[in-house]
Amino acid sequence: MGREAGETGRRTGLKDVARLAGVSVKTVSNVVNGYVHVAPATRARVEEAVAELNYRPNPSARSLRGGRSGIIALAVPDLRIPYFAELAGLVVAAAEERSLTVLIDQTGGERERELRVASGLRAHLIDGLIFSPLAFGPEDLAARSDDTPLVLLGERVQPGSADHVAVDNVAAAREATAHLIGLGRRRVAAIGARHDAGGETARLRLLGHRQALTEAGLPVHAGLVAAVDDYLRADGARAMARLLDSPEPPDAVFCGNDLLALGALRTLYERGVDVPGQVAVAGFDDIDDGRYGTPSLTTVAPDKRRIADEAVGLLTARLSGATAGPAREVRVGHELVLRESTLGRAR
Amino acid sequence: MGREAGETGRRTGLKDVARLAGVSVKTVSNVVNGYVHVAPATRARVEEAVAELNYRPNPSARSLRGGRSGIIALAVPDLRIPYFAELAGLVVAAAEERSLTVLIDQTGGERERELRVASGLRAHLIDGLIFSPLAFGPEDLAARSDDTPLVLLGERVQPGSADHVAVDNVAAAREATAHLIGLGRRRVAAIGARHDAGGETARLRLLGHRQALTEAGLPVHAGLVAAVDDYLRADGARAMARLLDSPEPPDAVFCGNDLLALGALRTLYERGVDVPGQVAVAGFDDIDDGRYGTPSLTTVAPDKRRIADEAVGLLTARLSGATAGPAREVRVGHELVLRESTLGRAR
Repeated sequence: MGREAGETGRRTGLKDVARLAGVSVKTVSNVVNGYVHVAPATRARVEEAVAELNYRPNPSARSLRGGRSGIIALAVPDLRIPYFAELAGLVVAAAEERSLTVLIDQTGGERERELRVASGLRAHLIDGLIFSPLAFGPEDLAARSDDTPLVLLGERVQPGSADHVAVDNVAAAREATAHLIGLGRRRVAAIGARHDAGGETARLRLLGHRQALTEAGLPVHAGLVAAVDDYLRADGARAMARLLDSPEPPDAVFCGNDLLALGALRTLYERGVDVPGQVAVAGFDDIDDGRYGTPSLTTVAPDKRRIADEAVGLLTARLSGATAGPAREVRVGHELVLRESTLGRAR
Repeated sequence: MGREAGETGRRTGLKDVARLAGVSVKTVSNVVNGYVHVAPATRARVEEAVAELNYRPNPSARSLRGGRSGIIALAVPDLRIPYFAELAGLVVAAAEERSLTVLIDQTGGERERELRVASGLRAHLIDGLIFSPLAFGPEDLAARSDDTPLVLLGERVQPGSADHVAVDNVAAAREATAHLIGLGRRRVAAIGARHDAGGETARLRLLGHRQALTEAGLPVHAGLVAAVDDYLRADGARAMARLLDSPEPPDAVFCGNDLLALGALRTLYERGVDVPGQVAVAGFDDIDDGRYGTPSLTTVAPDKRRIADEAVGLLTARLSGATAGPAREVRVGHELVLRESTLGRAR
């Protein structure tokens, strides 16, 4: 049975634990908050004292004092999409520079799980959330009652409603398709139209694609826009096969992300179609896979490192209380990286 | 100012909160434990009552009652390695079937972060941990004082010291190299030797490779074993270049994982070397990238779905108290998947 100071009218505090364990209050705090750099023997002594005194940290006092768990969460749809896996690594690194631990939550892009994440997946465990939603929309954000600081990534955001980091998808996609047109291609297809809730990024990228066609005076053929269910390699491979089987196949393809483009390259390889000789291919994301593709992949490179830095920076500004004002909007740059899938192979 | 039942000698309980909020104790428990399926208005009413009464859940009572957070952690070295990203997705799915949420921790394979994870990265937040360590070794496991249930993945484990799920790396690698030898290749190189703490899996795979050579009566040339710093595409690309530049270049290469193999394929493509005509290539992991490679990649496919299921199953057995006995060892099957990088292209 543990003694409990509360029974004598006073609540057990850090000091009581520290006295019994024979360590400083700071050390007790470190153990209770789960920080590293506590010698195992010391940790054991403190844990014994905590059990003996039945000490319970006071969560409300802790948050009033600005106490933090030191943990932030990053919620992304799917880690099999290397863009999110690479982003996760960069967020972990950016958070580490600020002594924060990142726990990653994979939502599958499903609305119910995204709602759970945003409504404070254990608000008492995490200090803040960086969230890349697919199904979670502006109305969900408006209805959110949890006040855990939140930074949104991507497109499912109304300006001013939350701290937000994004790239200019329309401009970036326009540049990619303009590059394909600049190679002399006239039947420039797009792979990646979506009809589901996750379609906002897809919509913006296809909009940029169409803008480039229109600016070049080219018609927008509905038959040259391939819809997909998801943004994985298999979807790109199937969509490319459909485009090749159409009466007037394309001579270039802009793909909504690199995985779609890598799937398309696979189909072109299987069919013996020369890339870029017969069909030039461009993607979006600049993932490592595309850099090592055979051929290597021309793609839009969003500044992922800056996305991660800005997201963690916006969040820590909220956490430290340095920012209490309205939502901030950060637009991160991008670059069109030209490689073999449009330029051909250097020999 | 909140009223506090504790001031009158009794600690505020779930019942007090339930009475004030006008809901059931179960509903309060659901809100306090962060579960879903609580209507926003109800949640708000409970949260107001919690604040009003300054209610603090009693963590020790909670764990004595077998109360759980419903969260498990998965700690992996690097999500940019698609094997771990795919495994994470499968663990999330397997956990979901058991109504558990998974938070993912990326350790970078660094010993300090792995120690922090294993010593109960907030033991009060998570019910259990599935851990794929690189640097964390048997001695660290023996020194572990935290008693959060733990399932280890991979090779850094002494039998009997923890619940453990792994594939037979030696046998799997032996089969891959035996397949290359079976194609008539006689200079079968290996890419993936490591000299760092993360070398246990690498060591076992290279051991299997050497066993296959020896069984076939082939010499083991030190010049045909390429060391790498990491297991990423860039490492495979550089190692392949070194092997091609050696006095007697290989006619086949077994790679310690698929990323190394994809890097090697890139170098072979750049050098204009025919795959598999001049050099056949095999990898390990069966990641999606390899399936869509050009050429597609022959590889060892560990049963990742079963690894995830077994890991979550072992953990939940511990959590439910169904298992309290000694550590269990699960060996998961694998399969050699033959594709174009060794068989050539179907025409």
